[in-house]
Amino acid sequence: MLKLYYAPGTCALASHIALEEVGAPYSAERLNFKNNQQNSPDYLKINPKGRVPALVTDSGVLTETPAILAFIAQSFPNAKLAPQDSFAFAQVQSINSYLCSTVHVAHAHKMRGARWATEETSFADFKRKVPETMTACFTLIERDMLKGPWVMGEQYTICDPYLYTIAGWLEGDGVDLSKLPKVVAHRQRMEGRPAVQKVLADEKA
Amino acid sequence: MLKLYYAPGTCALASHIALEEVGAPYSAERLNFKNNQQNSPDYLKINPKGRVPALVTDSGVLTETPAILAFIAQSFPNAKLAPQDSFAFAQVQSINSYLCSTVHVAHAHKMRGARWATEETSFADFKRKVPETMTACFTLIERDMLKGPWVMGEQYTICDPYLYTIAGWLEGDGVDLSKLPKVVAHRQRMEGRPAVQKVLADEKA
Repeated sequence: MLKLYYAPGTCALASHIALEEVGAPYSAERLNFKNNQQNSPDYLKINPKGRVPALVTDSGVLTETPAILAFIAQSFPNAKLAPQDSFAFAQVQSINSYLCSTVHVAHAHKMRGARWATEETSFADFKRKVPETMTACFTLIERDMLKGPWVMGEQYTICDPYLYTIAGWLEGDGVDLSKLPKVVAHRQRMEGRPAVQKVLADEKA
Repeated sequence: MLKLYYAPGTCALASHIALEEVGAPYSAERLNFKNNQQNSPDYLKINPKGRVPALVTDSGVLTETPAILAFIAQSFPNAKLAPQDSFAFAQVQSINSYLCSTVHVAHAHKMRGARWATEETSFADFKRKVPETMTACFTLIERDMLKGPWVMGEQYTICDPYLYTIAGWLEGDGVDLSKLPKVVAHRQRMEGRPAVQKVLADEKA
């Protein structure tokens, strides 16, 4: 039995959707970020980084979205959430690495500036630049990474819930969606999937 | 025949070492960052992100270090640079995701602040904080991630050249190495490997 620690509005949504998609037996444990529960002694025993997602498995705890997504895909191969071919699998990992190391990081500068700076003037500077950096990231995604109908083309993969999760932040990040028709259509397509609908309802409940 | 685009002093070193370790037939093409060659029209056709590493394969171009490393390991399975077991493989991906999305990003705030901000005062603020953020990252690595003698324990994997690469930046980032004996010993152990020695010499030549 797998157990996912998550908080609403975070990148943990990607792993939550993937668990639902594969039909895994799992439970989802919500952390209260307003109470800083991610840095409570109990949670730091599970994930010393004080972040979500964390996936508790029979073999141990996994952290970092690209790793959790790869684990879910490989543990439930019948769901075909990752290609078998090593180049195509690496492409999936490349997109998910870009999402975690560049796109999520660009977004995080809006609210999490204290990770990298100390002064209020720096935080304000970060916030002003987020629309530009997120627009640049998603312009590249729209042009080069989203083959359609799914990220990797005909096969729905672990890239899809991850892109969907981060694309959900675009309005809040001040990005003009009218220039991103493929990203918007992908978001709508995702919301037609029963697994996505169920997880969104569970995270809101 | 694989072709790696790299620049000395960058994270491309990890992929370069991995190619050498597996005995892959490859060539290494150096970019001149001082001339901004990574943003030249010719290179942007290969990697529109304007970054290194990029690995040209028979199937297409791969970018992002964790993806390139996974591809090298899976393409040359006899070298055993990645575990077969899906949980252990996910642990490798988790460590490499952390290195790319948190540790490399912390380091990048020293010299690449213009990715996320505009003002000189912000850049100065970032630089002041880098010793603290890199120390925090490597304190966690020292305590929780580096099993020894290699990152994953007895098996040398694609985590090792990546950790080695980023650990090479610690002095420049103002981190006190005396508190990181396992990281320092790992660095020395890496430099005893013929593949590492060859790549370091090639990148300097």
